[in-house]
Amino acid sequence: MDSKSTSYETAVNISETESTKLKSSSAAPAATSKAIPHNQKGGWRRGVAIFDFILRLCALVTALAAATTMGTTDETLPLFTQFFQFQASYDDLPAFSYFVVANAIASAYLVLSLPFSIVCIVRPHLVGVKLLLLILDTVMVAFTTAAAGAAAAIVYLAHNGNSTTQWLSICQQFGDFCQRVSGAVVASFISAFIFIILVVFSAVALRRH
Amino acid sequence: MDSKSTSYETAVNISETESTKLKSSSAAPAATSKAIPHNQKGGWRRGVAIFDFILRLCALVTALAAATTMGTTDETLPLFTQFFQFQASYDDLPAFSYFVVANAIASAYLVLSLPFSIVCIVRPHLVGVKLLLLILDTVMVAFTTAAAGAAAAIVYLAHNGNSTTQWLSICQQFGDFCQRVSGAVVASFISAFIFIILVVFSAVALRRH
Repeated sequence: MDSKSTSYETAVNISETESTKLKSSSAAPAATSKAIPHNQKGGWRRGVAIFDFILRLCALVTALAAATTMGTTDETLPLFTQFFQFQASYDDLPAFSYFVVANAIASAYLVLSLPFSIVCIVRPHLVGVKLLLLILDTVMVAFTTAAAGAAAAIVYLAHNGNSTTQWLSICQQFGDFCQRVSGAVVASFISAFIFIILVVFSAVALRRH
Repeated sequence: MDSKSTSYETAVNISETESTKLKSSSAAPAATSKAIPHNQKGGWRRGVAIFDFILRLCALVTALAAATTMGTTDETLPLFTQFFQFQASYDDLPAFSYFVVANAIASAYLVLSLPFSIVCIVRPHLVGVKLLLLILDTVMVAFTTAAAGAAAAIVYLAHNGNSTTQWLSICQQFGDFCQRVSGAVVASFISAFIFIILVVFSAVALRRH
């Protein structure tokens, strides 16, 4: 009777070890099925990082175009009197000077941020770098939109003038100047918009961690 | 001999079940020790959410102050000719009109975002709401800084004038108008700065998930 009960126990124990084996064998596919979405997530995040890099290049082009277009704008009218020449340059207006400085800073920041963006492509799970880029991108949104807004206000005045304050339109005389400046303002607004998209992408990539 | 070996096996199996019991009992404190930092993290995130709510109230005050100050600015000079009166109002200048609209939109958004901010205090682990607020806050950074920049450019012109474009300063005549407008611009820049801080806080809170 005793030997029977022990043999019964052994049988139970064997079945238990078999069940644990089964459990462990069923745990293995579970682990792999967990690993696959993790890789997929990594791939998804890498795609966002590559898109981030491309957007940074686009923003660099527009910010650089805005800064150089505004910075090289300088028109001298052919008519001049004995005492002075009629000349319009970007640095006559402080708003335009700030515009050049802000867009130059944004361009420099974008160049410096490219290596960090590459790091995010190589290692899509790094959080600190993404957070740093998100914060600096937000500051750049403020920089570039303030510059674009200020320049746009002046360009509007230059085109239309203002009757209340008796500020006359200057685009009749300085047509080429006005066109170049308007182009620079549009480029700056585009780069500001790209910065906003960069912030949104960084936030979405941060969320999934 | 056979019964001895089975009894030995039983003993081994008993010791195995005991060891698993020990493992399970040692797993329990590990689980509780994990639970404590999780709660601490939740508390930390709740603190950030409360700070977020307070910042939103501050931004609401400054944005509303900027919109109303600019919107109620209207100065009529005591001197007038037979044909017209000298009057300066915010809606004479499109930049100031945009300033009022942008700050009113920011105020309305801040009022609407307060319930969402309260939801974040009650449930600090909600990710979707925080992400939504972060994206809309970024858009508001662009809105308010563009408005503040445009208004600042015009205010600078009103104060100092510009010799190249022959736009004369109007603050000699409209002193009260200029002062009120300058105050509104400063208030708008403060609200833009608070929006930037809100974005940074949201990003930091998102990261820790």
